[in-house]
Amino acid sequence: MTLRFRHVALIGKYQQNAARGQSGATPDAMLDGIGQFLKAQGCEVSTLEGDESVPPGRYAELSLDDIGQHCDLGLVVGGDGTMLGIGRQLAAYGVPLIGINRGRLGFITDIALDHYQSTLVPMLSGEYEEERRTLMLGQVIRDGQKVFEALAMNDVVVNRGATSGMVELRVSVGRHFVANQRADGLIIATATGSTAYALSAGGPLLHPAVSGWVLVPIAPHTLSNRPIVLPDGEEVSIELVAGRDASANFDMQSLATLAHGDRIVVRRSHMNVRFLHPKGWSYFDTLRKKLHWNEGGS
Amino acid sequence: MTLRFRHVALIGKYQQNAARGQSGATPDAMLDGIGQFLKAQGCEVSTLEGDESVPPGRYAELSLDDIGQHCDLGLVVGGDGTMLGIGRQLAAYGVPLIGINRGRLGFITDIALDHYQSTLVPMLSGEYEEERRTLMLGQVIRDGQKVFEALAMNDVVVNRGATSGMVELRVSVGRHFVANQRADGLIIATATGSTAYALSAGGPLLHPAVSGWVLVPIAPHTLSNRPIVLPDGEEVSIELVAGRDASANFDMQSLATLAHGDRIVVRRSHMNVRFLHPKGWSYFDTLRKKLHWNEGGS
Amino acid sequence: MTLRFRHVALIGKYQQNAARGQSGATPDAMLDGIGQFLKAQGCEVSTLEGDESVPPGRYAELSLDDIGQHCDLGLVVGGDGTMLGIGRQLAAYGVPLIGINRGRLGFITDIALDHYQSTLVPMLSGEYEEERRTLMLGQVIRDGQKVFEALAMNDVVVNRGATSGMVELRVSVGRHFVANQRADGLIIATATGSTAYALSAGGPLLHPAVSGWVLVPIAPHTLSNRPIVLPDGEEVSIELVAGRDASANFDMQSLATLAHGDRIVVRRSHMNVRFLHPKGWSYFDTLRKKLHWNEGGS
Amino acid sequence: MTLRFRHVALIGKYQQNAARGQSGATPDAMLDGIGQFLKAQGCEVSTLEGDESVPPGRYAELSLDDIGQHCDLGLVVGGDGTMLGIGRQLAAYGVPLIGINRGRLGFITDIALDHYQSTLVPMLSGEYEEERRTLMLGQVIRDGQKVFEALAMNDVVVNRGATSGMVELRVSVGRHFVANQRADGLIIATATGSTAYALSAGGPLLHPAVSGWVLVPIAPHTLSNRPIVLPDGEEVSIELVAGRDASANFDMQSLATLAHGDRIVVRRSHMNVRFLHPKGWSYFDTLRKKLHWNEGGS
Repeated sequence: MTLRFRHVALIGKYQQNAARGQSGATPDAMLDGIGQFLKAQGCEVSTLEGDESVPPGRYAELSLDDIGQHCDLGLVVGGDGTMLGIGRQLAAYGVPLIGINRGRLGFITDIALDHYQSTLVPMLSGEYEEERRTLMLGQVIRDGQKVFEALAMNDVVVNRGATSGMVELRVSVGRHFVANQRADGLIIATATGSTAYALSAGGPLLHPAVSGWVLVPIAPHTLSNRPIVLPDGEEVSIELVAGRDASANFDMQSLATLAHGDRIVVRRSHMNVRFLHPKGWSYFDTLRKKLHWNEGGS
Repeated sequence: MTLRFRHVALIGKYQQNAARGQSGATPDAMLDGIGQFLKAQGCEVSTLEGDESVPPGRYAELSLDDIGQHCDLGLVVGGDGTMLGIGRQLAAYGVPLIGINRGRLGFITDIALDHYQSTLVPMLSGEYEEERRTLMLGQVIRDGQKVFEALAMNDVVVNRGATSGMVELRVSVGRHFVANQRADGLIIATATGSTAYALSAGGPLLHPAVSGWVLVPIAPHTLSNRPIVLPDGEEVSIELVAGRDASANFDMQSLATLAHGDRIVVRRSHMNVRFLHPKGWSYFDTLRKKLHWNEGGS
Repeated sequence: MTLRFRHVALIGKYQQNAARGQSGATPDAMLDGIGQFLKAQGCEVSTLEGDESVPPGRYAELSLDDIGQHCDLGLVVGGDGTMLGIGRQLAAYGVPLIGINRGRLGFITDIALDHYQSTLVPMLSGEYEEERRTLMLGQVIRDGQKVFEALAMNDVVVNRGATSGMVELRVSVGRHFVANQRADGLIIATATGSTAYALSAGGPLLHPAVSGWVLVPIAPHTLSNRPIVLPDGEEVSIELVAGRDASANFDMQSLATLAHGDRIVVRRSHMNVRFLHPKGWSYFDTLRKKLHWNEGGS
Repeated sequence: MTLRFRHVALIGKYQQNAARGQSGATPDAMLDGIGQFLKAQGCEVSTLEGDESVPPGRYAELSLDDIGQHCDLGLVVGGDGTMLGIGRQLAAYGVPLIGINRGRLGFITDIALDHYQSTLVPMLSGEYEEERRTLMLGQVIRDGQKVFEALAMNDVVVNRGATSGMVELRVSVGRHFVANQRADGLIIATATGSTAYALSAGGPLLHPAVSGWVLVPIAPHTLSNRPIVLPDGEEVSIELVAGRDASANFDMQSLATLAHGDRIVVRRSHMNVRFLHPKGWSYFDTLRKKLHWNEGGS
């Protein structure tokens, strides 16, 4: 067997902004077990500095930048949220990612902890399906100046404040005016995000191979304001026309407070996130499992 | 012609909590015209103290309580929001209300300003349809104590905070557990409210003659969490299980900030609001107009 | 223990219109087991003539009319469809029904075969919750004459023909015009039916204690043609204005072919179906189970 | 001014399969007026043989094939349905189309009859926006043999029979199994079709520049069976597993009766339809008008 990935970054309960000693994670024998397994396969194993779920002193601790520069693979042990965070961070480096889920399988962390060994062995030798997910680059423009910027893998969400009735948003795509929408908010979701908040708000599922985004209004005042799938080659612009205390969320993580006249501009990032799946993996298998299709139920 | 309503309260741009001189309304010749018309019909006309849309000094100014005690009819000139506010205030007194709309007709203010005279003449002599709308009494219970209480004609809404992902709500009806719901929020709407926010969030229309409420989850995590219509004879209880900065809104006007463990309890008030409509009025005519049915469009 | 129900009709795989020997059912030891259990409790047990799932010669075979006249309880072993059929047939007699389900529990057959004995013992002695479900009486009126009539517990459905694009339906409630709807069809569902076809078509759940029906358009041309909940005290009338090969279904069982100008008239039957449930039963428990709420899934 | 389109086919109330004298159309002065206008611009004008809305004897009558081979432009005067029919017929030849609508503007016939002259003059000289719409090639495969084939610009629809409860469909995309769906039916719609039947059934709007299709289940039994947008590079296969009298519709026009085991296979045709719009035209303007966005209504 030839090893396809020599240097693997083993990533556990990673918290983007937690200072050392504040992540709440404790060293985890399971994670160490995976690390030892990888070594036994011949991999060099490093971990992310500040990742307290990895037992200290057993692996080289690298910065995100070092992982990006030097590792051939990121092995993420956690849920979809962890995977999204790491995906955004490592996108610039093109490091492919594999997701192992400790609990219920996720949409993008699709390898069960139970039988990770038999699943990983062929993958490490190059037997896998690769899938690329797009990233959105979101910016807040105020008086012609960029005042906020963030990447998002799932969605950019513009929301009314908790105490105000509605926002009014002026939506444009490229140089074309789309509509003024009055609603609780508006979601711009990638295919990855189409199974998350956008789905709850009534949006369609969007296959990752479609080069598009879906705009989903949240509780729109006008009943014919339906979700719309757009090509992702054009910039989407959302101007806050009315509504108090509105905000923009990027993957429900970075937050920008909005003033009237602010424009949230979303375009496709030139970067992608690379996910690796076991050979024979199908996106539809994941959908079917997660959405409980074909269980004979209602 | 016998006059069915002798003493009429003429109510314009009324703002519940505005101090004198702060409502932003200016005296309005149109409102005065309606007042003079009512006098010409033989009515005594009073106005609500603090209502700056009525020219000062021409009508007796009464407090809400005096209007409730002494007037036979409230004639509200404004939109649905004004009507809701007055409806809640006068419900305890049983004074019937007629709504004249200055702009686009509303769901409950269904008389156009254009031809109010020909419409009002027969109504003042007793030719009308009366319709009763229910009120909800909403309370916030914390540690067994009632810490907030408000009436609502449209809806009680429990909402996540703007920066938090979701609320988890434990819903019960009477002594029965319904479900734990994770969502952006939950709307409990009366028939009156079923054409407002609840409709935007995907709820059904509820005819005012149905003794029921509709519970509509906002962007629910579980796709099978569908709107449910409940009898209004039982108390609905919603406990905040998880979620930061959640709040409860009553007719999108009174606001209560919520803590974990707070229960929002909603029951039917013993009071009703009495709306009067022109003879031959039909609820369905209003629906058809407001929802643009039968316009040959999409 | 006093026996609350002396004479029990044990009903298995009953098929309304099957001739003897054509039901496809074979005698069933399990059903016989339930019969012997009932006898051991002191009940007289009869079966429905033509029910081939009951071993022949062991129980008195009664006609539906005899069961209606003489039995104190119907014990239905089957799914929701069987229960609906028997419910319609026995409604005129007021005989209460208990439903035992062989497979996955249904919305109205909520006792599992596994532990029917421990569940039935207290129920037979009077420990139960009684719930009444409404029935609709549907008629087809052509040129002023009634040409078809059927009872429905779930729904009356007016459908376009398979090869035609759409039907246009003129809907009225009582003497009021509601709207002309262009759609694939229209469902009028009881609370019982609100968890069946109407739910698939986007309708709300309707609690059985609400005196109402829900009208759910199927794929309506006008996007604001939303489901509407109506009081069940008024007659709903649906006139076929346009569309080829349209038909009316009553509980998806009785079928009437429609001509232009035909009116389908639906009113509440004076009869009810009485369902008995184990003490402590809650409608919401059934909903939660059937709709997979609170399973931690999507 | 240079003429960009020398030879124009003027097409009126065209009916694909009507024999001469059976279309029900009568010669139409308005159409003749457009023809004379085109001649005055320097165009050679031909008409489609069998098109009875054109006054006889004034224009050369060509077969569809001749129009495809020799004309530089098709000018269609009619509604979206006419445009769809001609679009399918002329797709193989690459002739661009302009649509003039006599009545309410359509989604794809977006030039009003009122001011067609001022709109057409610049277009004829080359001032226009060109837009390409995809076509689907649908086939019915029985026992390994193709038994039916049709092009569709809007949608391929698999439907239950009028008298049967449901169909069960086994859906695959490429070599991947998607799900078994029980529903009234399933719509596979192009972007063009996403504003038609698919929208009524709850599907999203799909921008024509997205290389995708949307699968929309009609009244699905499983509530989580949501619309899904797929890349149009892979074949969609739908096998009829269960359900009586099912059929497949192609643009609601060609019909195939289905047997159990039949597979409906849909792939993207190599042909496109070319629509020409006035300079400055925007897809979103059409959406906004047709869906009554921004009209201040509900």
